[in-house]
Amino acid sequence: MDISERDQQDILDAEHAALEKQLSSLHTTELAEILMASKNDTERLKIISAMPDEQVGETLLELPERMQESVLSKLNASEIESVVEHLDSDDAADILQSVSAEIAEQVISGLDPEDRRGIETLMLHDEESAGGLMQAELFKVRDDWKARKVLKVLRRWGQTIENLNYIYAVNQHDRLTGVIQLHTLLFCNLDDEVWRIADADFPRVSVDEDQEEVARMFEKYDKLALPVVDKHGVLVGRITADDIIDVVHEEATEDMFRLAGLSDQDDLSEPVGITAYRRGIWLTFNLITAILASVVISQFEATLQQIVALAVLMPIVASMGGIAGTQTLTVMVRGIALGRITFSNAKRTLLREVSVSLVTGLGFALLIGVIARFWFPAYGNTLGLIIAAAIMLNLIAAGLAGALIPLTLQRLDIDPALASGTILTTVTDVVGFLAFLGLATVFLL
Amino acid sequence: MDISERDQQDILDAEHAALEKQLSSLHTTELAEILMASKNDTERLKIISAMPDEQVGETLLELPERMQESVLSKLNASEIESVVEHLDSDDAADILQSVSAEIAEQVISGLDPEDRRGIETLMLHDEESAGGLMQAELFKVRDDWKARKVLKVLRRWGQTIENLNYIYAVNQHDRLTGVIQLHTLLFCNLDDEVWRIADADFPRVSVDEDQEEVARMFEKYDKLALPVVDKHGVLVGRITADDIIDVVHEEATEDMFRLAGLSDQDDLSEPVGITAYRRGIWLTFNLITAILASVVISQFEATLQQIVALAVLMPIVASMGGIAGTQTLTVMVRGIALGRITFSNAKRTLLREVSVSLVTGLGFALLIGVIARFWFPAYGNTLGLIIAAAIMLNLIAAGLAGALIPLTLQRLDIDPALASGTILTTVTDVVGFLAFLGLATVFLL
Repeated sequence: MDISERDQQDILDAEHAALEKQLSSLHTTELAEILMASKNDTERLKIISAMPDEQVGETLLELPERMQESVLSKLNASEIESVVEHLDSDDAADILQSVSAEIAEQVISGLDPEDRRGIETLMLHDEESAGGLMQAELFKVRDDWKARKVLKVLRRWGQTIENLNYIYAVNQHDRLTGVIQLHTLLFCNLDDEVWRIADADFPRVSVDEDQEEVARMFEKYDKLALPVVDKHGVLVGRITADDIIDVVHEEATEDMFRLAGLSDQDDLSEPVGITAYRRGIWLTFNLITAILASVVISQFEATLQQIVALAVLMPIVASMGGIAGTQTLTVMVRGIALGRITFSNAKRTLLREVSVSLVTGLGFALLIGVIARFWFPAYGNTLGLIIAAAIMLNLIAAGLAGALIPLTLQRLDIDPALASGTILTTVTDVVGFLAFLGLATVFLL
Repeated sequence: MDISERDQQDILDAEHAALEKQLSSLHTTELAEILMASKNDTERLKIISAMPDEQVGETLLELPERMQESVLSKLNASEIESVVEHLDSDDAADILQSVSAEIAEQVISGLDPEDRRGIETLMLHDEESAGGLMQAELFKVRDDWKARKVLKVLRRWGQTIENLNYIYAVNQHDRLTGVIQLHTLLFCNLDDEVWRIADADFPRVSVDEDQEEVARMFEKYDKLALPVVDKHGVLVGRITADDIIDVVHEEATEDMFRLAGLSDQDDLSEPVGITAYRRGIWLTFNLITAILASVVISQFEATLQQIVALAVLMPIVASMGGIAGTQTLTVMVRGIALGRITFSNAKRTLLREVSVSLVTGLGFALLIGVIARFWFPAYGNTLGLIIAAAIMLNLIAAGLAGALIPLTLQRLDIDPALASGTILTTVTDVVGFLAFLGLATVFLL
């Protein structure tokens, strides 16, 4: 059953050809799914080598960050070059920021001068800023040109640009002076000068703007693309609405993960050990705060020994505070992220949340008080009154903490979602146990 | 100091004129902020009456749903008509869906026949489907026309459509046969027929598609607008990328709110009483599960009475399980929402999460075991071993529940985020208390 080396090579070639054929009809999203489902990078590289060249870059960009970096690290400079070649400048810059500086330099030096300049500029910017999101490909014209000339140039060059919707007008210093919607060109007088037909008030994004703010501008102005300018007003790129969809997803995931005590890099494709390590950091933080709560309880050992009903009921006090606080916290964190809670209405929002916690506090204090009264009748009305007071106190503390923690973090320029869940439950656990066991020690012993 | 009625009217008129002037320079986002900050609807209506007519609709659409409905309910049919007049069909349909059926009918009957048909069609669709998102305004041409004719018609009608990027080609039955990017028209031969220059493979959305899936298509294809077709392939509308940004925000907010035990209608502009009521429902649900945990604890009253250290330590077991489970839950809910966790990789993801919980379980079992051993030395190694075993068990239960709850809910076609947080903490509380107190009863008494 020996297979000669030659035969083996033939079989491999035939396999490769079959794979190539299968892959050629797929969209990059499907290709990315196949790569994610693959066992390891060796298998992934085999599949990549069978993919159509122009699909490789877009597919790699859809992989989770870690997997992407790992695959890229196994490609050589000429392979990276052929990946980058088929990408828009913003995506090319993203890929080049993920490979070693040495390879990036090699690839960039091989590009033609204009592409090189574009990509080098993009690589200077923070990935989460407008500069990191924008692409250099756009269609710009001098604002003293006539419409006729614009059309002529557009016929010649426009076809190379994807999603061409707006034409950007600049003055002799390359400063953005206006924006023309493509279809206005079809309706205007061909002798009109660009500055006459361009919209000078079209919104623009500053290159250093944070991506969250950029997303907010897209929501506000309902445009399909916004021009990006540097601090001198010079046009440096454009951002299209479809890129913003990714940003919005990313920011929401980050907030959800941080609220749950997860690293925003927690990723399904990561090795188990690394995920366990990342989550372990947050669990350790939670352990410290849980021990703090236990220390509070241990101060009342004597009370607990005499009235074991307290041990039965105390988790209810803590748990109700934790949930009520998380409700407020989530509303606040999301409201801040969406720009609905600002410095100017923060006070009113805080008051509102405390009012809600007063109302719910009163309701649940009554309800739980009655339950405790009938569950443990041996203590008469006292136990019911004590737990009612503790619930009331803890729900108010929960409302206050749920609102104040994110507001304070924001004032300190820290992401309001970060660690606020753990800080909150520390407050509600400590206040809950302290109030309940403390009142019981005073009134029941 | 009497002011005659006439003078009073003059003052009011002057005030109104001043307000009008102030408001005229503002963007709808700013106008919406002013309305949100207003005390009540009377004040809001005063401001609205001073706003430029063409801004009113867009501004109302940016208000929180409840406030929008409340303001709309105070406008009469002719006022609603002037609001709707300045809006795109999709937005007009949204407004008309929020007013009484009677007023909506009155307004619609006053529209010209084409607008009426467009809006009536839009109002048929579920707000969260492609049909609810799409707008009727688009530019369509017959696929047997010549490019010359398209340009001629476009010159005549194109100016009325905002964000005109694509031209849709249909056959004689109005079925979509292809899409032309506006700028290809500039480069083509004027004698070419439309079907020659149109892209027949351009992605399209089915009118019943859920908005979450539509958002995924935008991410997948990176287009600035997608055509919407009915089940016969007839072109019925288009959705632009900027509308999808709102959808993505909305879906993320819904998931975050549901994870935190909040109604997805929880809103900063709601009356306190209504918010308290909505949150109260979730808090009641939580109370029931908290009582369940207390019932578990009450089974071990005798044990707790003898070993009060158990009451001190038991919240640590429950809390670590709760946090670890929430981590897994959040990763799963988000992964499902983003389409990263699908039926095909669900088993692998489940295994992965359980592996992570085994690793963290082992680590924290050791750590907490040692802490308990030295905190309460009276019980020798036994208490440390017991809490270690309980932590280990609870963290595995947390991983399993955190992964299985959202997967099961999804299989049952229920939103995986809904109530899963409360179900999860019930599991971790019950398992935690049962394991810890149960083991202690067996080995320490």
